[in-house]
Amino acid sequence: MKMFSDAAEYGMRAVVWLADHPGNVWTVREIADGTKSKAGYLIRVLQSLARAGIVSSQRGVGGGVSLEADPQHVTILDVLNAVDPMARIKTCPLGLKSHGTKLCSLHRRVDEAMAMIEAEFAKVTISALLKDSNPTYPLCESGDRLVRLGLKRVK
Amino acid sequence: MKMFSDAAEYGMRAVVWLADHPGNVWTVREIADGTKSKAGYLIRVLQSLARAGIVSSQRGVGGGVSLEADPQHVTILDVLNAVDPMARIKTCPLGLKSHGTKLCSLHRRVDEAMAMIEAEFAKVTISALLKDSNPTYPLCESGDRLVRLGLKRVK
Repeated sequence: MKMFSDAAEYGMRAVVWLADHPGNVWTVREIADGTKSKAGYLIRVLQSLARAGIVSSQRGVGGGVSLEADPQHVTILDVLNAVDPMARIKTCPLGLKSHGTKLCSLHRRVDEAMAMIEAEFAKVTISALLKDSNPTYPLCESGDRLVRLGLKRVK
Repeated sequence: MKMFSDAAEYGMRAVVWLADHPGNVWTVREIADGTKSKAGYLIRVLQSLARAGIVSSQRGVGGGVSLEADPQHVTILDVLNAVDPMARIKTCPLGLKSHGTKLCSLHRRVDEAMAMIEAEFAKVTISALLKDSNPTYPLCESGDRLVRLGLKRVK
């Protein structure tokens, strides 16, 4: 089992990448290249992020995608909730009538695990992910990062 | 996003149901009915559980499936590991060479979340799930449970 769905993984990569490339609008192709994502799927994820106000998207010439929200305030959970929220268990998955919303111990434990994950991911902002580059920098070969920061010359 | 895959959900239901119906062998159809699962998919999950030694499965006349392991020792994590283990992140999902096994903050956080879930599920045995019937009993209409325990007469 994966922790993140493909949509969640793509959404996180895109938001982290955009936060790391501020002050510009980017084409879907550029974001896909930067995050090693498939453009066709990424575009749907970006639409979800735009609906949630995390990115902004302008069509047409000179248009593109940029980060709309403040990366100091956007958390991993915000991104998940925008693209593929945790499917919290609200009623008995077996459809047992006497259970209804009174989850049994099995499904209560599973739901509690999801609540725990949500709480953990609500603590971590995109800025925090970018600041924490130990040992490696998100979505970026270590050398490239040094090049972009002007700390290393391109060969 | 779901916490449990379908395989994990089916595996947990089957093991909880078998632990609750000890001292007998059951057909796949009976387990499927008892756990409201699709028999065709359940059979594959039961094969995984048999390979892990959690259930035993005998073919032929008089054969069937029963719980092999001690429900006081089998945990939710054991069942997950048998049918659909957490896909812990060991190397950079983007394939970045400079990252390799040195996960960046994003993928480290996701992997840590999976580790947290594993640790939680390692604490909970099947017996514990069955003992904790507040407010409802796993996989069972409340009335049925009372009937089976002889505490309520069938109408």
